[in-house]
Amino acid sequence: MRAAVMRGDRFVVEDRPIPKPGPGNVLAKVRACGICGSDLHYFHHAPQIIGRARELGADTSDMEQALRDGPVLGHEFVCEIVEFGPGTQRALPAGQRVASMPFVMRDGAPVLVGSRPETPGAYAEYMELTEAFLLLVPDEVSDDAAALTEPFGIAVHAVNKADLRGDEACVIVGCGPIGLAVTAVLRARGFETIVAGDLSPTRRELATRLGATAVVDARTGSLLTRAAAEAPGRPVVIFENTGAPGMLHRLVLEAPKDAQILVTGIAAGDESFVPMLAITKELKLQFVIYYTAEEFAEALELIRTDRVNWRPLLTGSVGLEDVTQAFADLSDPERHAKILVRPWAT
Amino acid sequence: MRAAVMRGDRFVVEDRPIPKPGPGNVLAKVRACGICGSDLHYFHHAPQIIGRARELGADTSDMEQALRDGPVLGHEFVCEIVEFGPGTQRALPAGQRVASMPFVMRDGAPVLVGSRPETPGAYAEYMELTEAFLLLVPDEVSDDAAALTEPFGIAVHAVNKADLRGDEACVIVGCGPIGLAVTAVLRARGFETIVAGDLSPTRRELATRLGATAVVDARTGSLLTRAAAEAPGRPVVIFENTGAPGMLHRLVLEAPKDAQILVTGIAAGDESFVPMLAITKELKLQFVIYYTAEEFAEALELIRTDRVNWRPLLTGSVGLEDVTQAFADLSDPERHAKILVRPWAT
Repeated sequence: MRAAVMRGDRFVVEDRPIPKPGPGNVLAKVRACGICGSDLHYFHHAPQIIGRARELGADTSDMEQALRDGPVLGHEFVCEIVEFGPGTQRALPAGQRVASMPFVMRDGAPVLVGSRPETPGAYAEYMELTEAFLLLVPDEVSDDAAALTEPFGIAVHAVNKADLRGDEACVIVGCGPIGLAVTAVLRARGFETIVAGDLSPTRRELATRLGATAVVDARTGSLLTRAAAEAPGRPVVIFENTGAPGMLHRLVLEAPKDAQILVTGIAAGDESFVPMLAITKELKLQFVIYYTAEEFAEALELIRTDRVNWRPLLTGSVGLEDVTQAFADLSDPERHAKILVRPWAT
Repeated sequence: MRAAVMRGDRFVVEDRPIPKPGPGNVLAKVRACGICGSDLHYFHHAPQIIGRARELGADTSDMEQALRDGPVLGHEFVCEIVEFGPGTQRALPAGQRVASMPFVMRDGAPVLVGSRPETPGAYAEYMELTEAFLLLVPDEVSDDAAALTEPFGIAVHAVNKADLRGDEACVIVGCGPIGLAVTAVLRARGFETIVAGDLSPTRRELATRLGATAVVDARTGSLLTRAAAEAPGRPVVIFENTGAPGMLHRLVLEAPKDAQILVTGIAAGDESFVPMLAITKELKLQFVIYYTAEEFAEALELIRTDRVNWRPLLTGSVGLEDVTQAFADLSDPERHAKILVRPWAT
């Protein structure tokens, strides 16, 4: 099969063996897969990420092996079932379109798709999936929509991890796909004050379309000042989606008393802040990643019922041979938010 | 009246005017006041604390004025009512023993006792208190016990701020008075695994007496490894009470997935950590200080009913002239945990 393999500073379409599904797993044909910010991050910083993990005491031999072999990334996918491995239930038929949390069971443990040599991701024509994680994609949900289940799952999870009463002033720091999805989920849940900030005017425009009630140019304005003006006296919940160096320090400095900071943005380096400030304001920092199976299913249902305005997020699609170009294009927030890879596009 | 006034590296007993209670406030005679870790911290680092606050954008003119005037610290007190200011309800009679959250209302806003020139603390014969915050100390509660209401209030609050189901493995980092009070409150609430760590053998012994089910020498053992051994597979909640440089980084590194870290220890400098680790483990960092009025009252009730073993905490008492010596003695954890100041002792 054809796969877009990461080789240094580009992706090369190579021939790879079609996976043979293990016990409880299925072979799936990839219909579409979104390019995630974490894929971009890995593409640009893989050696540093692995080096840092090693410094921190992790066994990085699998990560190093994956990098040497040429990783096949991609974990925001919609597929169709092709073939069943041993010990499967076969509740869904071959040909059925499915989404799945991006984990494959190996020896009883879930392994993240795209992160290890034995679990290649969805920038390829086929991939292995675990039957127990498969989620039926209803006929009325397009491939484009279904491929967004994963980022919306993260957003549902981030919102669930906050302790919300419903009247909070919500602050969205950074309007990449996750910040935008969080905005849409908060809107779907009825929040009346959603203040979103980004450096890019296009991203701020997208935030408005996805449900932000106010937007702030992060270069010139303070999100927290604006939130306080929009909803004076309300409790504040902040979603930090940038992972930008120094951002946690800034938020701890600017956050009002009792604020919650939900952190989805991955800052890979060390970050420093002033605990004394966090203590006197009794801040909460909740770090989040992934989702539960229920949250993943809820994300698909929010998309199916159009309770989240997912359409503006999708700004392009490419075949496997143009993945390198898509990664380059995504560095310009004025041009793109989410690009889908369609492995079978010609 | 006599007051122990902080003057550089010592406390000097000086004559100060007896406060005149403002609207809604009372004049109270101080019977006893505990020396708090935050008082020690302020005593040793006041210029740095103020300088740091200024750097971070705070208006520090009041703090600087307090330092020039000679601060009267002390906020863990038991008093008796002497005289009522204008506009008071007088529900409690003069002579009644009372505890209070350490705030005095000034122009409609609570001001921390001991932190500002106009609200001197309890290392003095008299102090001003706000009637609305007064809590009757029942006759069966000794002065010694009542003076511990404040640190136990912090402990009740810290435990309440954690999201606990009841079967958590609890980890106590640092067995100063707050760590010990948290230990006792967790024990009172029925937690079966409370692993406490400290460098000092005496403090570890105290932790056992207050309810720790296992203790670890922080120099040679890992609290988190021990907690995992004592209660395998249980969710983990960590109470960080040291404020030691580097401790947050270490806890983020060692904490298991989904751990909560409740931070009561005041690290005044910058602290750095690796957000990527916190994200992949979905850690929660909740910073805590103070308490609600209900939590403060609950602390006194826990003490009254002997549901917390508060007695071992008290290791000494001094008059006003020996406050300097008491501050020095508290630097040796083998000798002391909590020393009370008795302004009227002769």
